[in-house]
Amino acid sequence: MQDILDKAKAIKLVIFDVDGVLTDGSLFLGDGGEEYKAFNSRDGHGMKMLQSTGIKIGIITGRTSDVVEHRMRSLGIEHVYQGKLDKLPAFEELCQLVGVSPEQVAYVGDDVVDLPILVRVGLAIGVQDAHPMVKQHSHWLSPSNGGRGAARDVCELILRAQGHLESMLKQYTR
Amino acid sequence: MQDILDKAKAIKLVIFDVDGVLTDGSLFLGDGGEEYKAFNSRDGHGMKMLQSTGIKIGIITGRTSDVVEHRMRSLGIEHVYQGKLDKLPAFEELCQLVGVSPEQVAYVGDDVVDLPILVRVGLAIGVQDAHPMVKQHSHWLSPSNGGRGAARDVCELILRAQGHLESMLKQYTR
Amino acid sequence: MQDILDKAKAIKLVIFDVDGVLTDGSLFLGDGGEEYKAFNSRDGHGMKMLQSTGIKIGIITGRTSDVVEHRMRSLGIEHVYQGKLDKLPAFEELCQLVGVSPEQVAYVGDDVVDLPILVRVGLAIGVQDAHPMVKQHSHWLSPSNGGRGAARDVCELILRAQGHLESMLKQYTR
Amino acid sequence: MQDILDKAKAIKLVIFDVDGVLTDGSLFLGDGGEEYKAFNSRDGHGMKMLQSTGIKIGIITGRTSDVVEHRMRSLGIEHVYQGKLDKLPAFEELCQLVGVSPEQVAYVGDDVVDLPILVRVGLAIGVQDAHPMVKQHSHWLSPSNGGRGAARDVCELILRAQGHLESMLKQYTR
Repeated sequence: MQDILDKAKAIKLVIFDVDGVLTDGSLFLGDGGEEYKAFNSRDGHGMKMLQSTGIKIGIITGRTSDVVEHRMRSLGIEHVYQGKLDKLPAFEELCQLVGVSPEQVAYVGDDVVDLPILVRVGLAIGVQDAHPMVKQHSHWLSPSNGGRGAARDVCELILRAQGHLESMLKQYTR
Repeated sequence: MQDILDKAKAIKLVIFDVDGVLTDGSLFLGDGGEEYKAFNSRDGHGMKMLQSTGIKIGIITGRTSDVVEHRMRSLGIEHVYQGKLDKLPAFEELCQLVGVSPEQVAYVGDDVVDLPILVRVGLAIGVQDAHPMVKQHSHWLSPSNGGRGAARDVCELILRAQGHLESMLKQYTR
Repeated sequence: MQDILDKAKAIKLVIFDVDGVLTDGSLFLGDGGEEYKAFNSRDGHGMKMLQSTGIKIGIITGRTSDVVEHRMRSLGIEHVYQGKLDKLPAFEELCQLVGVSPEQVAYVGDDVVDLPILVRVGLAIGVQDAHPMVKQHSHWLSPSNGGRGAARDVCELILRAQGHLESMLKQYTR
Repeated sequence: MQDILDKAKAIKLVIFDVDGVLTDGSLFLGDGGEEYKAFNSRDGHGMKMLQSTGIKIGIITGRTSDVVEHRMRSLGIEHVYQGKLDKLPAFEELCQLVGVSPEQVAYVGDDVVDLPILVRVGLAIGVQDAHPMVKQHSHWLSPSNGGRGAARDVCELILRAQGHLESMLKQYTR
């Protein structure tokens, strides 16, 4: 765990996959082809806490939907890459844009399409119910499943490693 | 448990958080940014039983959505505070409005934003799947998870403590 | 179990509650107050098999929504009573309409509002995740939870008791 | 397991049922009778990987909804048979169209209406939470439940048996 905290201490950018990470992988579709996703309220609060410390958050997903734009805008996340079947170019573009090296990036994924990024970043994280190959190539597994708190787990891990968590939580019980 | 029942006996106002308490934390979003929530039918019946004894119910939530207004109106709950990122002022306003002291209030929460109220009320309740810090500062944990009967658990606890539950349930088997 | 099969042999009318029985109790609401429910495909097939033997199916629910009308129409269920906060009068009306005595009725419920009917029918059934008082007053508990196959369990119990199940299922493997 | 891999090696067409297999069986309905389904993102990726090796995918379902058309089109699946209460004629038509014998077909089902096909195909698969009679007549049960990865399990089984899986997955970690 100390090794994980050491890796987490260096992180300046956290990138999340969407389906299976910020959701439980369910793609709700309607008769007209419209799409719905179920995000998690506690994940949202974690992402806001993380951003308040200056850490950047990005999204890289293979699918494309307006739903993702809406959710990310409401969380103040500006780096949103959708429709990236090959995620690596988006990853490299985002690192350059934010001005970080791969060692300063944490990536959270659930499926094999996330592997090209996971094998390159400083902190590779799989959700608890990730595909076996993702688990195999992750430095850490979130205690929670995708869509059920996995992103919150990641945010608190990094906040703890960087010394922000305790003071942040203490303010709530003053 | 006797201590919990003693605290519950004094309650005149029960305040619920929404996401993660009256729901399982899922935020359903559509392509147009419209929002959906999944409430629980048995929670609804518990809240109606509780209100029938004269106990007041309030809602304080950090998010804002029309969905919450619709659900609360159908349950006859008039004290609805939405968009309260800092929940404490709403809590104090509501106590004054209803005319109760913090010792006469039960609050049910799931996340750290609920802590400022939880540490002040007479009966602090966390849902079974609450954040660890919420569990730590709660007098009681509902046996059920948020959105899966936690609010019903709370209603029956208070009805039992105040001597109403047995007679209420008995009328159904007459 | 033989006692349950004996009771099930006499059944000519099966009445289901909706929320918590044909669904898992989730009430999905949208921004405009519109309502959604999640029914179960295997429950639907069970209800069709049951009806094919001449057994009648009815619905008595405390809430009112167009969703229920749509689902019941698609299953060919004509006896639909909605908005029945007090379920007993609807029960008595339905028994008279179908021409059965309470001993010939099975009722499936999950909450205390179902108790007035449950204590009167020949076969009182609670879903696996029913309220403790419903469990206490049920002759039988479905192995599955509400919305996750409970209604199918009930249909197969009655089909088995009346000697139809084996032949019905055998036709699928001819 | 070797026997299953041998059967899987011969497969040229995989047919999936929809409700309970590609979903968890939940039928979401709205006030206007409109229908929604929750598909699984990882299932989708499995079906794309499978198709990329030349294996054909078909859908045979007893219900009819526009939702299914939308999902299948987005996955590039052209053989979609809906409203087939009796699934056998559709199965025979599809085998002829694709030019395969039953031994070259895998079928994945969850309920008794799937049995007429399951007893005829070379590889009969039930989802983990299938009806007992489906389990009894299946050569293999997917480790995952319907809608929670069952289809992905099936795709990877066949890709492994035909020697494609390892190389496919390896490309992600290059």
